[in-house]
Amino acid sequence: MENVEESTNEMEEEVGKVMEQARELQEAGAGLISMISNDEQSLRLKANSLDSSIRHLRSSITTVLSQKLLDPKLADKLEEDLQTAICIITDGDAAGFLPANAQGWYLRMFLGPISVRASRKEIQLKAKEEYNSYRDRTALMFILFPLILLILRSWIWEGCLPAFPVQLYEAWLLFLNTGLALRENILRANGSDIRPWWIYHHYFAMATALVSLTWEIKGQPNCGQKQRGVELFLQWAMMQGAALLLLNRYQRRRLYTRISLGKSNSMNVARRETTGVDCQLWVLCPILFVMQGFEAYVGLLLLKTAFARVVTEWQIIFCGIILVILAVGNFINTAQTLMAKSRFKGTMKKSKSRRELY
Amino acid sequence: MENVEESTNEMEEEVGKVMEQARELQEAGAGLISMISNDEQSLRLKANSLDSSIRHLRSSITTVLSQKLLDPKLADKLEEDLQTAICIITDGDAAGFLPANAQGWYLRMFLGPISVRASRKEIQLKAKEEYNSYRDRTALMFILFPLILLILRSWIWEGCLPAFPVQLYEAWLLFLNTGLALRENILRANGSDIRPWWIYHHYFAMATALVSLTWEIKGQPNCGQKQRGVELFLQWAMMQGAALLLLNRYQRRRLYTRISLGKSNSMNVARRETTGVDCQLWVLCPILFVMQGFEAYVGLLLLKTAFARVVTEWQIIFCGIILVILAVGNFINTAQTLMAKSRFKGTMKKSKSRRELY
Repeated sequence: MENVEESTNEMEEEVGKVMEQARELQEAGAGLISMISNDEQSLRLKANSLDSSIRHLRSSITTVLSQKLLDPKLADKLEEDLQTAICIITDGDAAGFLPANAQGWYLRMFLGPISVRASRKEIQLKAKEEYNSYRDRTALMFILFPLILLILRSWIWEGCLPAFPVQLYEAWLLFLNTGLALRENILRANGSDIRPWWIYHHYFAMATALVSLTWEIKGQPNCGQKQRGVELFLQWAMMQGAALLLLNRYQRRRLYTRISLGKSNSMNVARRETTGVDCQLWVLCPILFVMQGFEAYVGLLLLKTAFARVVTEWQIIFCGIILVILAVGNFINTAQTLMAKSRFKGTMKKSKSRRELY
Repeated sequence: MENVEESTNEMEEEVGKVMEQARELQEAGAGLISMISNDEQSLRLKANSLDSSIRHLRSSITTVLSQKLLDPKLADKLEEDLQTAICIITDGDAAGFLPANAQGWYLRMFLGPISVRASRKEIQLKAKEEYNSYRDRTALMFILFPLILLILRSWIWEGCLPAFPVQLYEAWLLFLNTGLALRENILRANGSDIRPWWIYHHYFAMATALVSLTWEIKGQPNCGQKQRGVELFLQWAMMQGAALLLLNRYQRRRLYTRISLGKSNSMNVARRETTGVDCQLWVLCPILFVMQGFEAYVGLLLLKTAFARVVTEWQIIFCGIILVILAVGNFINTAQTLMAKSRFKGTMKKSKSRRELY
């Protein structure tokens, strides 16, 4: 009987203690969250007003310069200082408090209202690094997957691709482009200045992959002729893989520069950032242009195939048109990037141009 | 000349001020972020230790009770108190500091390493509410889309569905299931106790939709016979829409109860939560069981179609098998939920059973 009473008391006491602790924890949690949101709000206001001061100052420097009320050399120096100020707030922890890019319809559609914004710069950079290594793996797949299909086609399949592996490849493309578009939208919400075109590019590629899944892969007889489009498409995919690998190398070097500068908290971010990168760009661009030409060629060939024959599947016309649109869009955007690069050749504005390349 | 000097000085001063402010902002941001992460860490440790105390106490109550060292009525009361403590920390702001469910491979694959966890309970509940209204819209589409296809089939298409609208429907299914799986994974990362099966269900449904896209919709002659599988599938989809609407009504009522209780910070969450909901469940379950039976029937019919004919497309066999797996899995999970509900009939344990239903 004594035992019963003892254990009863003990249990009651412990449960009471736990309930007390639960209430304390709840209060501490609510307190911390409200404090955080107040502090964040005030930093957000400061960041906003600083952001608009910088914009305002930049435009007044231009005005004063045009009225010849300012020495051009001094104007350059002031521009550079402003650029440094921008780098301080965008490359450091303050970045989390700058006005965010809205999470567009694509993220809302797939993820709902949840925020994908990382408050720490460190995590934002990690996300970007992971995105780059994801693209590296992707690029390898882009080279290997079509290569294996084409090799098996001549070795084992006697010049005629069976439907299943091609459809597997198309399903992979669909999955891949959906994922890339999600990741790029997330990077954008985290302050990345990726050109919107490259995200639209993935939307178009998603549509193409989806449509190509519904399009029957025809075999014998005349397999070689019927599958000419698929063959060209696979070759183009391999080229794309190679270009992606190069592009990744270029962008990763830029990212690492930023990370190391962010860590050392250097003020000269603007000046040092593009060192050793420009020459790579001039190797990269011709490859990109050739690839875009080939893309347009494949698109036009698909259209020709569709219009020349009596049986026209709408899927072939659709994919042909999308490929041509992609080629033209890619060309325009790469050209604009290059033009932006060479226009702002001076040291002062180099850092500005980094916003321009994908 | 004086003007030049004046504007030069002014500009230099303002740029200096902006740079100073940028540095201050960066420091304030870094300071706030490190403070937040320290405070959060300490709350997380407390929440963890409280969580394990509660687990430990629960098991000791069971032990002491089995040794007859505790009055059963008192044990019930203590159990209830512990449940209240759990509700305090899981339904309030402290929830953000409890150990999180890991973000599984599906989220990592599509989103990369970014966290989708909301720190505020308010946002978590908003995400859940939005998910419910998304499912409502989905359920309507599930009823309307197949209904329109079936009506047009007998009115305009003379008993034979053209390929394009069916493929559009399949693409919609693919997109829908991808989105639902993403949202449910996000809810899980935010502490929702959704049964894993319902997420796997969407993975299977994604695979089915993808495969059905590659499968040729055959037309005349003998269209009615060839499209029997599609027809059954569309009818089943309509039933699924109706069941979804009912399920949503049930779950939304539960959510609203939680939100209002959370706001009033009531301690009696456990007791009041399931009021008026049980009777709805007994209407819902028979409908769910009938639907699952129909799902299995459609699956077996697809398999029969594939094996009876000489031409067997692998896609038909695949979809048949998946439908049967889904039906069996759905049945087992619904039955388990019901059993859990009726086993813990007592008031005390009602709140526990809320974890069990989808």
